[in-house]
Parts: sequence; structure tokens; C-alpha cells
Amino acid sequence: MVAEELSVEKLVEQFEQLPGIGPKSAERIAFHILERMSAESVASMADIIRAAKEKIVFCPVCQNLTAETPCRICASDRRDRSVICVVESPEDVKAIENTNEYNGMYHVLHGALSPADGISPEDIKIKELIERLAGGEVTEVIMATNPTVNGTATAVYISRLISPMGVKVTRIAHGVPVGSGLEYADKITLIKALEGRQVI
Amino acid sequence: MVAEELSVEKLVEQFEQLPGIGPKSAERIAFHILERMSAESVASMADIIRAAKEKIVFCPVCQNLTAETPCRICASDRRDRSVICVVESPEDVKAIENTNEYNGMYHVLHGALSPADGISPEDIKIKELIERLAGGEVTEVIMATNPTVNGTATAVYISRLISPMGVKVTRIAHGVPVGSGLEYADKITLIKALEGRQVI
Repeated sequence: MVAEELSVEKLVEQFEQLPGIGPKSAERIAFHILERMSAESVASMADIIRAAKEKIVFCPVCQNLTAETPCRICASDRRDRSVICVVESPEDVKAIENTNEYNGMYHVLHGALSPADGISPEDIKIKELIERLAGGEVTEVIMATNPTVNGTATAVYISRLISPMGVKVTRIAHGVPVGSGLEYADKITLIKALEGRQVI
Repeated sequence: MVAEELSVEKLVEQFEQLPGIGPKSAERIAFHILERMSAESVASMADIIRAAKEKIVFCPVCQNLTAETPCRICASDRRDRSVICVVESPEDVKAIENTNEYNGMYHVLHGALSPADGISPEDIKIKELIERLAGGEVTEVIMATNPTVNGTATAVYISRLISPMGVKVTRIAHGVPVGSGLEYADKITLIKALEGRQVI
């Protein structure tokens, strides 16, 4: 299949198509594979890439990427099934899990609404979220989409859909990052921080 | 082979082991593959990585990486066989070829002498270079190793081996910024460096 035209350039191209890898880095990676890695490591890398793409799918419940269905979080009996935290991407689930402070469920939208890019409600996993609420087990949905224009619009859109169902919808707080100086915060963040102030 | 323990993390690890890719970038690449690339593109990428490692070998003449033996440059009847340009890596051949100003042959050492890292003459392709000079066809060897301490030491070492054989040994001019790698030099600098070579 790749017999005739196989070349170093062809290998370089494979890495150039990945995000964050420019032509120079792609070349460096290709030469690293050809000059320094063992044949076994490279074969195993190729196997894992192929198998991962074949076997890792969207969890039928939360839509996160997983090799087991349902995913480990959805299958766990130690998580609080009354709360769903809605995020844009699998990276966001990982970031929140890393805090070790959240014990509820997740829902991955795989994007945010963006009229400019032609991304409408049917293009992200909103329908699947609504279906999960039908059982009546869920009492709170935490909107943890990104604090960007699109992320906020998505949070507002979903909140309007869900609220009539009698489920409480909350939004994660936006403010000055802990450990950072007030002077480095941008205007909008400071306004949000002031608006969201709490009694201490 | 990768059945049981397949996971997103396993895929992330594959990219983390490549040069210039940190944990965050590796994660971004893995999610890009799983969320955005088609199954066909991923399968083809895996095939090309595997096939490239299997089929791309060192040219028996110049030691450059190639899918054909001998490589295209060594097989060409339009190149000047009386001159050999000695470089550290395949990237360097590419950089010099891109100038379109050099029409001789190459020899890739795959490294430079480095007593600190335990790299001695037997660890790089010096013996293979000496063997190429035995035919008497070569009249000049251009040392284009990097202008670093190790690259310069390698040039001097090889020059002392070759000079007694009656072959002229030259060094590319220090138009290449000292302390930097050959692969980062721009075209003009590389042309100047080739033009300004001196007998060593």
C-alpha cells in the first residue's frame, strides 16, 4: 500500500499534519524514529496508534473517549450520579479529574456552539445530554465550558434547554486565578471576579 | 498485543517519547487523532510509520537514510564524484541539497566525536568514509560537520586521517553561526559557507 513512494519525506508528512508540529519538528521526529528508535519501539508505536483509533470510542453515556464501554467513570459505583459536569473536550475531564475534588459525572460536548464556524446544536453532544436527564436522577448540571464567547454562549443555550426540566444549572466561577497577581488579570476577568464576590 | 491495557494515556505516551513533544502537546495530538482524524488517515499513518522504519535504511555508499539502495544521490550520473561533503546527519544533507548549489556526493557520519558522551571514531561512520577514498576517484573531502566543539574536533580528526592519502580536505567557512546546528542555517549562509571553504 505504501510500497513504491516510501521516503523520509512521506514520514515527515505524517507528523506535519498533527497539531503543533511544524515542518522542522516533523523532520526532527522522523529522523529520530529512523536513526535512534529500535525497530520494536516503532512497530509497537504504529500498532498502538492503529489500535487506539480502532478501539477508543465515545462512551455511550458521557461521550468521553474510552476503550471500555461505558467508560470507567460512568461504570463506577463510587461516583455521585446526581451531578453532571458539562465540558467541551476530553482534556477538560482530565483537568478536572486531576483536582481530585470532583466526584460527580461528566458530559463531553466535543466542541462549543460557534455560528461563525457553522457549529450548531446538532453538531455537538447536546441531544445526548438531554436524554441523560430524562431519568430524573440528575439534580444539578454544572456548565464548565470554556470562559470564551462560544463556551459561554453554549452554557447559556444549554441552561435554557435544561432549566424547564426542573434541573438546577450552575456555571463554574470565573475570577482571578489563585496564585497569580491581580495586575496580570485582564479586564473581563477582573469584572467577573468582582461580580462573583462572596461573603467571607 | 496491545489489547487489554489500551487507553488514551497509552496513545499519549507514544508521542511523549518523541523529541520536542511535551506532555501537553502529546495529549493534544492524541485527542486530535481520536476526535478529528478519519480512521483511514490514522491507519495509513500507522502503516507509513511502520513501513518507513522497516524499509528506510542507511545507503551502503554515503550512509544517508534511503528507501532505495544506493540512494538517489549516490546512484545519479549527474553528480560530481570527485567531491564528498561530510556531514553529521541526514538533516544536513537535506539542508545543503536545498541550496541547489552543491553537486558533489555526501557522507553522513551519524554523529560527531564526543569523548564526554563516549562517542569514539568506531561509533560514527568514519571507516566507511575512508573505504570510499580507496578508489582514488575522490580528490576533495569537504568537512561540513557542525561548527560546534564536537563537530570541529571531528573535522580535524578526519582531516588528519585523510590528508596522508593525498586527498585535499577542506572545511566549510564559518559563515554558519558558531554554536548553532547546520540544519537551522538559512540558504545564503549555507552557500557562503560552501564557497568560503579553506584547506585544513
